[in-house]
Amino acid sequence: MAAQPPSSQREIRRRNLSRVLYAVAEQGPSSRAAVAARLGLTRTAVSTLVDELLRSGLLTEQGPTPPDGGPGRPGTALALTDSGPCGLGAEIGVDHLAVCAVDVRGQVRARRETGSEGRNSRPAAVLARLRELVDEVAVQARELELSPAALAVAVPGLVARGTSTVVHAPNLGWHDTDIAPALAQVGTVGEETGPGAAPAAGGSLPLIVDNEANLGALAELWLDSGRVPRDFVHVSAEVGIGAAVVLDGELLCGNRGFAGEIGHMPVRPDGPRCACGGTGCLEQYAGELALLHAAGIATDGPRDDALDTLRDRAASGDERALRALEEAGAALGLVLAGTVNLLDPRALVLGGVLARFAPWLRPSLERELVERTAAPGAPPELLVSGLGADGPLLGAAHTAVREVLNDPLSYRAANGG
Amino acid sequence: MAAQPPSSQREIRRRNLSRVLYAVAEQGPSSRAAVAARLGLTRTAVSTLVDELLRSGLLTEQGPTPPDGGPGRPGTALALTDSGPCGLGAEIGVDHLAVCAVDVRGQVRARRETGSEGRNSRPAAVLARLRELVDEVAVQARELELSPAALAVAVPGLVARGTSTVVHAPNLGWHDTDIAPALAQVGTVGEETGPGAAPAAGGSLPLIVDNEANLGALAELWLDSGRVPRDFVHVSAEVGIGAAVVLDGELLCGNRGFAGEIGHMPVRPDGPRCACGGTGCLEQYAGELALLHAAGIATDGPRDDALDTLRDRAASGDERALRALEEAGAALGLVLAGTVNLLDPRALVLGGVLARFAPWLRPSLERELVERTAAPGAPPELLVSGLGADGPLLGAAHTAVREVLNDPLSYRAANGG
Repeated sequence: MAAQPPSSQREIRRRNLSRVLYAVAEQGPSSRAAVAARLGLTRTAVSTLVDELLRSGLLTEQGPTPPDGGPGRPGTALALTDSGPCGLGAEIGVDHLAVCAVDVRGQVRARRETGSEGRNSRPAAVLARLRELVDEVAVQARELELSPAALAVAVPGLVARGTSTVVHAPNLGWHDTDIAPALAQVGTVGEETGPGAAPAAGGSLPLIVDNEANLGALAELWLDSGRVPRDFVHVSAEVGIGAAVVLDGELLCGNRGFAGEIGHMPVRPDGPRCACGGTGCLEQYAGELALLHAAGIATDGPRDDALDTLRDRAASGDERALRALEEAGAALGLVLAGTVNLLDPRALVLGGVLARFAPWLRPSLERELVERTAAPGAPPELLVSGLGADGPLLGAAHTAVREVLNDPLSYRAANGG
Repeated sequence: MAAQPPSSQREIRRRNLSRVLYAVAEQGPSSRAAVAARLGLTRTAVSTLVDELLRSGLLTEQGPTPPDGGPGRPGTALALTDSGPCGLGAEIGVDHLAVCAVDVRGQVRARRETGSEGRNSRPAAVLARLRELVDEVAVQARELELSPAALAVAVPGLVARGTSTVVHAPNLGWHDTDIAPALAQVGTVGEETGPGAAPAAGGSLPLIVDNEANLGALAELWLDSGRVPRDFVHVSAEVGIGAAVVLDGELLCGNRGFAGEIGHMPVRPDGPRCACGGTGCLEQYAGELALLHAAGIATDGPRDDALDTLRDRAASGDERALRALEEAGAALGLVLAGTVNLLDPRALVLGGVLARFAPWLRPSLERELVERTAAPGAPPELLVSGLGADGPLLGAAHTAVREVLNDPLSYRAANGG
């Protein structure tokens, strides 16, 4: 048991300000009394915290509260601001780049997207284009009186834990690429004229870089919490197949940040050679390329066209397409059964391309799951993401928003409040 | 973010008393000043806590402290008591039963063991015999002025999380067996005449029941902390193969308590049928029976004899034995590579029978690990347990001891202090 120094007053205040913001985020517009009841704090304490958040501009007051108030001063409803700080999310895909701005209410307020030739690309060229998109979205955001407070970037590869370095992104061909230098001062164009100066003028935005599967899983957790439990394994495919393990509402990062490489769990020990060095990895059976090859669909054109073709053929009952999807589902089911035996999660969530093809993958996937789950009882629920291909981008933007919600004092300080 | 009620004074006192005990447990005999420094508490606060722990008998004072004291009253060294409460650990094996008592210093003070016909057994008969052993160890403990405070039982099967129910123990043939009724009031014989009455006179000891692999992993974590990190996957074999995932010093239980069923991760989708309903599970390649069969060793006699024969043959270079071990190592390596790709642990620990045969399993196991680990860099360190077959029993006893260390107030109350 490691020794813990007593929490400082500032730390306690920071945490309580954050708890007030999350309470309003989760409850919607709320009276001070409702916030106090939810947090187990006194109304006096909450009023002091709320005053500070009103001064900093993170909370605003709306009309009278819904009649939940009880005695005390007649309340106005507290709401999160729709101006002030926002989070920027970015996604580096193999064939596209996307950027969006999300306000502290969780609404997407600006968005830009473009095609990209990411495969075996030079990082500098891709990052320069991403930088332009981020700057464009930042300008759009400022026009809406939003002020970018942090940037989070989803990448299709391994990111060293707690750093901005892409250690290996096989489908981009990137190795040991620190993306921070190329994004220095990005998103801060025109900030002097914006409604708030966040962060410290002239500095770079706080930057978070993470694997797309991790950020996609956080999007499920945060944006679909009525359906997705707090313990689950999220499996998604874009060009590669990745997973994220969420335990009690927290991402499992792994020792080096490399957890979730489910695409390289073995299906057949003597299967086809994989780019990772192994043989018979899941990606060789259920990866996008393997799936398209098995269905007899050309892969030298645009990805979306090929995937549309696969969907159309499956929908029209094409046998080869159906067999390819069934076999991919069985391979996924085999690996997910192993994952269930190891981790006993509460649910499995299929995202990305897997969500799109879920109707055809599900029967063979569930058959393997049921047959191979060692524990008695039904295997975990199999959910299909409702976020489609947007999961990683939204997860990134919400990660950036949470930088503000988690540390309102630093925003206030940056904002000169 | 769930609301948390403010900690009560009693809860804070309980936690601080516990922190003092763990500080002394980890540092060895310590001055009050050394404890205060470690915990970041004032010397006055520590003195008050220490006085309470001295009165309850959990701490004792020894001769003068080593010269680390600095100014203040000349200290005597504080040490954990070698009398007072102890934890009882029990292990239900397929072919043996074992019970031991461990004092709060962590020393094994009493131990009994016997053969058992556990395979396809009636729970009542096995538990009656276990009960006798526990009572015998409790009597031995009382003769040493120790007073059993809790009992933890390791079982070779799935235990529903937070309960005493063995949902399924395939090698015992037990299903949905709540072992608590058969152990009511066990270990409390003669407690009226003992030096302390813990727990409340006439009641049953607090009972914890868990999977043997989980308790074995905790033993590694707690008893070999200089070598075993706080994030690791522990794989052990007795008759079956089990695993435990430890993340930041805590066991991953899984949603229903069923995490760690690594024996049923698939090696070959079309391999031999397994009792779990699947095919080609790891147990079919690296389980004890599979290994003995592959080596051409009869399995109808005592387990230990068969395992001794395998070891002797391997040591003398018998080709069939060596090939069986090599193939088992490769199957383990395949499944562990998948586990590493999914979880990115800091280390892998081989326990139980796997530890005994590690020299022969390791080459093929490590070859598969290196080849199939997708992330760049070396795969996690492969450690071999130093606890041998005792891991689950010691993990159980230390779990019981920690019931006291985690909640010294309840012991004090039970002790009438």
